[in-house]
Amino acid sequence: MEKPLLQIALDTYDLPSALGPLQKAAAHIDVIEVGTILCLAEGMHAVRAIKSLFPDKIVLADVRIAEAGSIISKMCFDAGADWVSVVSGAAPSSFEVVLAEALSRSKDMQIELSDGWTWEMAQRWADMGIRQVIFKRSRDLEAQGKLNWGERDFDTIRRLHEMGFKVTVTGGVKPKDISLFAGVPVYIFIAGRAILGADDPAAAVQAFQAAITETYG
Amino acid sequence: MEKPLLQIALDTYDLPSALGPLQKAAAHIDVIEVGTILCLAEGMHAVRAIKSLFPDKIVLADVRIAEAGSIISKMCFDAGADWVSVVSGAAPSSFEVVLAEALSRSKDMQIELSDGWTWEMAQRWADMGIRQVIFKRSRDLEAQGKLNWGERDFDTIRRLHEMGFKVTVTGGVKPKDISLFAGVPVYIFIAGRAILGADDPAAAVQAFQAAITETYG
Repeated sequence: MEKPLLQIALDTYDLPSALGPLQKAAAHIDVIEVGTILCLAEGMHAVRAIKSLFPDKIVLADVRIAEAGSIISKMCFDAGADWVSVVSGAAPSSFEVVLAEALSRSKDMQIELSDGWTWEMAQRWADMGIRQVIFKRSRDLEAQGKLNWGERDFDTIRRLHEMGFKVTVTGGVKPKDISLFAGVPVYIFIAGRAILGADDPAAAVQAFQAAITETYG
Repeated sequence: MEKPLLQIALDTYDLPSALGPLQKAAAHIDVIEVGTILCLAEGMHAVRAIKSLFPDKIVLADVRIAEAGSIISKMCFDAGADWVSVVSGAAPSSFEVVLAEALSRSKDMQIELSDGWTWEMAQRWADMGIRQVIFKRSRDLEAQGKLNWGERDFDTIRRLHEMGFKVTVTGGVKPKDISLFAGVPVYIFIAGRAILGADDPAAAVQAFQAAITETYG
């Protein structure tokens, strides 16, 4: 099984607050996510600045496209994003136009699986040629106090993987949680506060990378 | 029946492109919408600049909240927005937190009715105390070539109004379409390209206002 990548989610309210910790953490990060909030706070300037500072990293503009997919994805790719996100509830045509735009530039898109997605939808996305999904623990389960990752999540990830998707996993993952995923085909783990909010962001990244190596070899 | 307001949707890719036409058009505009694309392009800087230039206008940040409603609505209101938009498919808790944030500041929120909304959902929103919805012609109907507004749309708007909602209407409305709405309780008409793209934006606004006055007296 391939070793999962590590993604840092920048969810600050302005760009300067993200840059300091990011600079410290970036060396061992694979993907830098310009979070929805940061995109809305700073606009494409944030994407442009981050790609300029870290040209060798994959930069995801987490704009959660629901409509106007062609325009928004173009804008993000023009600003330097490598990937953009589309919500699972987006208008069906959005998936196609964003995918076409991405592929025409050798870039990519991810579908964020929000409450209400179905296996039937997932099959349509796979048939369309969409290759990446973002899986988050169900809010309902979180609300029931089932705070940790469990077999139900792992089965979902496995099934998505079998359909051909590369699965990004998000939702408060900490280094100590990674070993729970042993044998589960995760493409990317996302960490946010656990790195950005750490006293020593570089050490926090190392803790993630050590846990990933230990679990996935 | 109250005379509908006129809203201009700023959907440019950067702020400067919007400012020129807006300056010319603003005098007879009631609501200025900082569109989703402009919010993503320029961030909250666009909202801040527009509220600073037009402090007496209602400014809508059309951020289409789907998640993280508390953080995003705070950010928009802090930047000077009077209203924010939430998509109808948002997590149920989002409606409550955004409404609470809005009401605590004597501001407001609008729910954008996307494909898949139901009357049951609308009733829940009404029960929650939500007062504004944005109604757009169905994409399916548009796809079938039914390009103009018709009785089915008007019935929907009437029923939403009867439930207590103030209904904003959007989807390529032109001055010549306004008379079709005679007797239909519209709170706001949105115009975008029809004003921004006009050779004479002030004249375009006057054409809308004349049509509104003629139809609603």
